[in-house]
Amino acid sequence: MTRKNKIDLNSDVGESFAAYKLGLDEEVIPLISSANIACGYHAGDPGVMRKTVALAGKHGVAPGAHPGFPDLLGFGRRNMELSLEEIKDCVAYQIGALQAFAVMEGLTLQHVKPHGALYNMAVKNTAIWEAVADVIARIDSRLVLVVLAGVNQEELQRIGSRFGIRIAFEFFGDRAYNPDGSLVSRKEPGSVIHDQELAASRILKLVKEGKVLARDGTEIELSADTICVHGDNPKAVTLTRKIRETLTAEGIEIAPMGSFL
Amino acid sequence: MTRKNKIDLNSDVGESFAAYKLGLDEEVIPLISSANIACGYHAGDPGVMRKTVALAGKHGVAPGAHPGFPDLLGFGRRNMELSLEEIKDCVAYQIGALQAFAVMEGLTLQHVKPHGALYNMAVKNTAIWEAVADVIARIDSRLVLVVLAGVNQEELQRIGSRFGIRIAFEFFGDRAYNPDGSLVSRKEPGSVIHDQELAASRILKLVKEGKVLARDGTEIELSADTICVHGDNPKAVTLTRKIRETLTAEGIEIAPMGSFL
Amino acid sequence: MTRKNKIDLNSDVGESFAAYKLGLDEEVIPLISSANIACGYHAGDPGVMRKTVALAGKHGVAPGAHPGFPDLLGFGRRNMELSLEEIKDCVAYQIGALQAFAVMEGLTLQHVKPHGALYNMAVKNTAIWEAVADVIARIDSRLVLVVLAGVNQEELQRIGSRFGIRIAFEFFGDRAYNPDGSLVSRKEPGSVIHDQELAASRILKLVKEGKVLARDGTEIELSADTICVHGDNPKAVTLTRKIRETLTAEGIEIAPMGSFL
Amino acid sequence: MTRKNKIDLNSDVGESFAAYKLGLDEEVIPLISSANIACGYHAGDPGVMRKTVALAGKHGVAPGAHPGFPDLLGFGRRNMELSLEEIKDCVAYQIGALQAFAVMEGLTLQHVKPHGALYNMAVKNTAIWEAVADVIARIDSRLVLVVLAGVNQEELQRIGSRFGIRIAFEFFGDRAYNPDGSLVSRKEPGSVIHDQELAASRILKLVKEGKVLARDGTEIELSADTICVHGDNPKAVTLTRKIRETLTAEGIEIAPMGSFL
Repeated sequence: MTRKNKIDLNSDVGESFAAYKLGLDEEVIPLISSANIACGYHAGDPGVMRKTVALAGKHGVAPGAHPGFPDLLGFGRRNMELSLEEIKDCVAYQIGALQAFAVMEGLTLQHVKPHGALYNMAVKNTAIWEAVADVIARIDSRLVLVVLAGVNQEELQRIGSRFGIRIAFEFFGDRAYNPDGSLVSRKEPGSVIHDQELAASRILKLVKEGKVLARDGTEIELSADTICVHGDNPKAVTLTRKIRETLTAEGIEIAPMGSFL
Repeated sequence: MTRKNKIDLNSDVGESFAAYKLGLDEEVIPLISSANIACGYHAGDPGVMRKTVALAGKHGVAPGAHPGFPDLLGFGRRNMELSLEEIKDCVAYQIGALQAFAVMEGLTLQHVKPHGALYNMAVKNTAIWEAVADVIARIDSRLVLVVLAGVNQEELQRIGSRFGIRIAFEFFGDRAYNPDGSLVSRKEPGSVIHDQELAASRILKLVKEGKVLARDGTEIELSADTICVHGDNPKAVTLTRKIRETLTAEGIEIAPMGSFL
Repeated sequence: MTRKNKIDLNSDVGESFAAYKLGLDEEVIPLISSANIACGYHAGDPGVMRKTVALAGKHGVAPGAHPGFPDLLGFGRRNMELSLEEIKDCVAYQIGALQAFAVMEGLTLQHVKPHGALYNMAVKNTAIWEAVADVIARIDSRLVLVVLAGVNQEELQRIGSRFGIRIAFEFFGDRAYNPDGSLVSRKEPGSVIHDQELAASRILKLVKEGKVLARDGTEIELSADTICVHGDNPKAVTLTRKIRETLTAEGIEIAPMGSFL
Repeated sequence: MTRKNKIDLNSDVGESFAAYKLGLDEEVIPLISSANIACGYHAGDPGVMRKTVALAGKHGVAPGAHPGFPDLLGFGRRNMELSLEEIKDCVAYQIGALQAFAVMEGLTLQHVKPHGALYNMAVKNTAIWEAVADVIARIDSRLVLVVLAGVNQEELQRIGSRFGIRIAFEFFGDRAYNPDGSLVSRKEPGSVIHDQELAASRILKLVKEGKVLARDGTEIELSADTICVHGDNPKAVTLTRKIRETLTAEGIEIAPMGSFL
């Protein structure tokens, strides 16, 4: 795997709802290149969506849909047994709703990244990625589908080809990896990397060498197009800023995934 | 006012939700030319929206958005004091969501008709029509805005011109009218016309002569582009069929509002 | 197992919501002895709850809570991975809400029967029954917990003893049983018995002999206190009436579970 | 009006929802005597309700229901035209739901204070106070109904007598008053008093003398049983602490309204 010249930084934003504020969107959006905007099912509401799309636009950040399960109470983090058809319908609804705000701001949605439990269930069941790909292809085939890097990567690439859409593989700098390329479950100790220096260096290694150190010490190859960063709290913003600075200092350009995929 | 050669028949459809079925969509859709499809706020859900859009497409009926207040419990029929900005956000969200399903079916939304309390509040407060017009203009200026005929008609026409969108004026065959062109309030006796023959003849008079008999016996001039018909129950479907037959027997073409406005 | 002199007939009611009517409550409630009333999470709303409690009271039918997952869109029929604490909180909320209406009608809630996916998940995971038992014991230990007969019956009886509450075992006359006493999955052919005569005779056999014919032809012993009947449609009401008549003709009294447990 | 020896301090708490935290409940609850706990309609959820009731109990603070309109998106602050019957149903549902958590914690609800737009609409339409009083009387006549002091006070007292429930009159130290005892509308300048010293001194004057200075400079008589304080932000908590200290320094006991009404 060769060194990448460009990488995308994506973050979940627009997660406020009604009277409730969540996340430091104003601080993290200027640091990223792709914004995953909640669409009102697990978080977000019409007003928040409008403001978040506008904020992304203002900073030249590409807006994308972050559809989740219809579970506001559980923030979309609880597995729900929806049929593939129900998943398609829910995802289409949310993408469309966000598109309206993008169009009103003179923007075009760049990507779709499923949220929380929907994302995690898709990682374990490719049929869900396929369902989302199908929806994307039929709504707007220029939309990039963001999936987890390291798991079924070839199969996902084939799904993208079949539906005529681009796939972006996502890397988590703050998560431990199993030797097979999957994420260490959050239920296991050491699954989350809290050391900021370590997280930044893992991201740099991935971008420069296409490699990540699995938790058993083996070095695995991993190709990613976008890195998930966070803006939930001041510390997360600091890490995101550090990641950005580390990458640009190395001559790696932070750019929206849609511009180089 | 001259005789019209074409008229649109619109009906509220797609009002089922989850396990709940409401309305005889399969029966009424083949009889109309424009379908006002609920968008999940006061009624409808993603699956119902998909199926209803498809059903409209199958019968050559133009699909439109029927956005309502976020009040599923009240079926969007209870006045809610939203700010104009909140109204815009809610309407944009719902139009966008429905657009996704239209696009997936290879269709284009034709119109937007606010639902229930939102519609009634707009009739009394032109600023709401303006807010909806603004949203429509920015999402897709080909979308027609459906408003009540007989009230502030010139002002509404000017709003349409200002925002560069078309306005469709709607007539209710089964409602009594005041001499000033407004609807007799549902709270007053005789506000709803239950006599099917009478309703059909009032519609015919409107289309042929541009006139309607107000409840004080005066004949008022009224220009309408679309007539609201119903499919809630078998009797309503029968009336809708009768209206359609009466109009076509008179050589008046039933056509989607977007085709002649 | 000896012949029972009394049996309870329970049915899910109060499942209408907002503008949506579901179920023939007026017809089925007079035929049953215990009413499982939806509490607003998967179905039902405050007005429906009030009316349904009143209707039960009018017919001398014991009202009970029918709590479900917070999934109106899925009618509570989709598995959701809630923690046991989340399940307890949701169940407590729903029982409390219904209690208010019971108190206002001068009635006392008799029982709690989890709905849909919550019930089915509990059948496969006794910890869920335990969580519900815990909530019941702390809200009102006179409340009977309704569980599926035939699966873990002894363990469930022990849970009841431990929490100091009564357990009612429920039988489904219209469902096929496996030899181990569990229900044949709805995904398998023949899982639902559509023959009304057969359903009625299976119920009679269960009540008189404490036996049910499993789908492999073996006769298994099963002890049940209450039989689930339906009122979704006219045919279901007819079957419920037939079941009631068959039982009373045999001298078996239809009585609320709380009166004989 | 004579000096009061006891006064109640109430605050809106339990307004967090799902992943969203709102308000400094842990800090403000130890400072008050009555907690108005959101019930899941405009804010709050089952888990938040459980924890908030427990927190109130731990600090010897009397828990009460804070029912609002079914408008999570608008935080219950938007007027909604519900019928009196719909208001009764919604209020009963919410009181009952909260009661379950109180009972589980071994506590009894002390009071009911409508939230936001429901409260404000009641101030302008006594029929709403009457509707809530009716519900309270039928659920548990020991529940105190909290209303705004200064407006229709005699009529509200009569409503309390008629329904056999206690009425608590509430004073806002941080709001300007009209000479007729009503609150200056939030839309007018100077409606909210931001000066903490002034707010505290107004409260002291009210408790000691039963008087408040209206914004036209006239001194009006006002009798209140409970004072609304806030815990939304650190500054509000500081003011609440100051109010508590000022009152206790003057020998006035802070006590739950139910203990002295």
